[in-house]
Amino acid sequence: MMKVLVINAGSSSLKYQLYNMEDESVLASGRVERIGMDSSIVTHEPVDKPEVRTVDEILDHVSAVKKVLAALMHPEYGALKSMDEIQAVGHRVVHGGEVFKSSVLVTNEVKLEIRNLFDLAPLHNPAHMMGILAVETNMPNIPQVVVFDTAFHQTMPETSYLYPIPKVLYRRHKVRRYGFHGTSHQYVSEQAAEFLGAPLESLKIVSCHIGNGASCTAIKDGKSFDTSMGMTPLEGLMMGTRSGDLDPAIVPYVMNKEELTLNEVNSMLNKHSGMLAISGISSDMREVQEAIADGDRNAKLAFDMYTYRMRKYIGAYAAAMNGIDTLIFTAGVGENSAVLRKAVCEGLTFLGLELDETRNAERSKHARYISTDSSRIKVLVVPTNEELLIARDTYRIVQATV
Amino acid sequence: MMKVLVINAGSSSLKYQLYNMEDESVLASGRVERIGMDSSIVTHEPVDKPEVRTVDEILDHVSAVKKVLAALMHPEYGALKSMDEIQAVGHRVVHGGEVFKSSVLVTNEVKLEIRNLFDLAPLHNPAHMMGILAVETNMPNIPQVVVFDTAFHQTMPETSYLYPIPKVLYRRHKVRRYGFHGTSHQYVSEQAAEFLGAPLESLKIVSCHIGNGASCTAIKDGKSFDTSMGMTPLEGLMMGTRSGDLDPAIVPYVMNKEELTLNEVNSMLNKHSGMLAISGISSDMREVQEAIADGDRNAKLAFDMYTYRMRKYIGAYAAAMNGIDTLIFTAGVGENSAVLRKAVCEGLTFLGLELDETRNAERSKHARYISTDSSRIKVLVVPTNEELLIARDTYRIVQATV
Repeated sequence: MMKVLVINAGSSSLKYQLYNMEDESVLASGRVERIGMDSSIVTHEPVDKPEVRTVDEILDHVSAVKKVLAALMHPEYGALKSMDEIQAVGHRVVHGGEVFKSSVLVTNEVKLEIRNLFDLAPLHNPAHMMGILAVETNMPNIPQVVVFDTAFHQTMPETSYLYPIPKVLYRRHKVRRYGFHGTSHQYVSEQAAEFLGAPLESLKIVSCHIGNGASCTAIKDGKSFDTSMGMTPLEGLMMGTRSGDLDPAIVPYVMNKEELTLNEVNSMLNKHSGMLAISGISSDMREVQEAIADGDRNAKLAFDMYTYRMRKYIGAYAAAMNGIDTLIFTAGVGENSAVLRKAVCEGLTFLGLELDETRNAERSKHARYISTDSSRIKVLVVPTNEELLIARDTYRIVQATV
Repeated sequence: MMKVLVINAGSSSLKYQLYNMEDESVLASGRVERIGMDSSIVTHEPVDKPEVRTVDEILDHVSAVKKVLAALMHPEYGALKSMDEIQAVGHRVVHGGEVFKSSVLVTNEVKLEIRNLFDLAPLHNPAHMMGILAVETNMPNIPQVVVFDTAFHQTMPETSYLYPIPKVLYRRHKVRRYGFHGTSHQYVSEQAAEFLGAPLESLKIVSCHIGNGASCTAIKDGKSFDTSMGMTPLEGLMMGTRSGDLDPAIVPYVMNKEELTLNEVNSMLNKHSGMLAISGISSDMREVQEAIADGDRNAKLAFDMYTYRMRKYIGAYAAAMNGIDTLIFTAGVGENSAVLRKAVCEGLTFLGLELDETRNAERSKHARYISTDSSRIKVLVVPTNEELLIARDTYRIVQATV
């Protein structure tokens, strides 16, 4: 009992984690890839047994969820005796628009609202909906909860979320800043407060979620005050393959010069820009670091632009909150790249930030300081765990409903 | 002798100032408006006599310059006995691309290069060229100098001027950050250093040129290190009618939703956005202030967004330079709006900035402090004078050439 299944459904993939909520431990996790293609792959990872990979024909999300349940109940490498042990299913949903300010139980109204947001997240929300429907088909009586990447940022004031463009675009087409990675920013800010032994509400935090996608959030009074991603996840920091900020006039200029369609320019800015475009090598920070070690000039330039733009956001958000006392690094690159953190922090000594190089070079799975004891700004590395937050929200909401 | 005529030619207008370079005094100034339209207007302003307005048919820039010279040599309200008294003509040119890193004497090669930049500044450079040719026709033997809005920013490092997009766009179409208002940022930073009695090279300056167009520049070692305007003057701060920064994905999204052409979306972002769009009232700070005084909520929101975004840039540039010791306000709004300066500075006390409200409320035509004596950041209002800098550059270059 008290088990929660967390699902992150993409258009051709589905990731899952099974949590025991009594101690918040993961019982099993895994992923289904290449859904709808010739040979789909299920990778199931039980906690104390070796990984199991099977190749199969999986034509849709309904079959994918069926395979996941079969793996979870497998007599040899499964983690469940019966499906009834799963108390609830929690889904990651990228876009909650302005409707969803927190996680909610899935109802017909909720499904309709998620559908209404397909336009704002055409690559993500339809896939999430397929995941929700596939669970409904396979597990008809089990309550589901949706947890939104945007929800945490719904506390932003108008001055942060409105764009200075004709208001009809907001009214008619919902053009505003939503922000993403909200589950992660919320999770690490709560963890940081706990680690520091300070009330979250008392802190002025800038949290940097740096993975292949990347965003900075200004957190004041425990709430998202501003964030670098915008209406879409394209805005803000330079990322692995996304440009981040640029002169908006470049878009029509380049469309005209290169005769690009709307889809082509979107694809260029989302998939062929960022660190990949400048380094000419990779969107992956590790490969860029290797190239820098080999003396590659473009890799160095890409890294310098990447960290320079991040430093500017930290400064901007310090100004936005009239101060900063806590700086958090999280997600793949943020947690693992000591060289990135060093490059970003070195240019922020004017704020009284002092990095401890020994601490910065260490590795850990737990929240930790990387600033010196005398640093005016506490700099932390906090491992993120979006799945755990989804499991917690799901469990809490289902308990409250029962 | 030692007189320099400064010209700022637009597509249907031409502004001029005649300088006596012995004491840098203005002898006369004025403007021609509605060139090429039915009834053009020449407004001539001698220094010690009343303004003279004449309405006439002026079909092109050649006729416009002829009228200007006639006004300057008019027996009653003119300032010259003969055209020979004008030693040189200096032109403002918006876009100098990567070719022009400083002001230069006009030659055939220079004219060709300015033509090559028509694509990057389609509204401005062709008009400037008409001004240059019109002077050539009317004053065949007089040397001309061009002074570029972009030149001061040519010192920016790659990390500031490159965008994280495919490099082919830079190589093939010159897509990069150029920055504008360079003449003004240079002028006020030099004035500030002189006022402070400190070597310009020793200061970390953020200068805010806030007029109907607006930009911030980070100035380090006496050179432009980064600036908010980009490939075009659209990027950066929220302005009177320009959006400034926004999620680049909004451009294709809105083009699709509203079925806009490239020109229409450009026009929307440049002419119908910014303070005008949010206030719903005006792009003029004074009118927005009046509306705020009347309790208008949208005017207040527009002002709050405007100052919030400016504060973020100041913080970002402080981080870019790892510090800031001098903050400069200049241009129409920056020089005249005490309420704007107060709103921007109030959120920056974390940097040790202390505004002196009495000093801030005063008015003067000279550079002055508006911070307290103990403020860690010196905040100055420095009146800009782009025409004087154009006259100086013109005079210096012509003297060196003779």
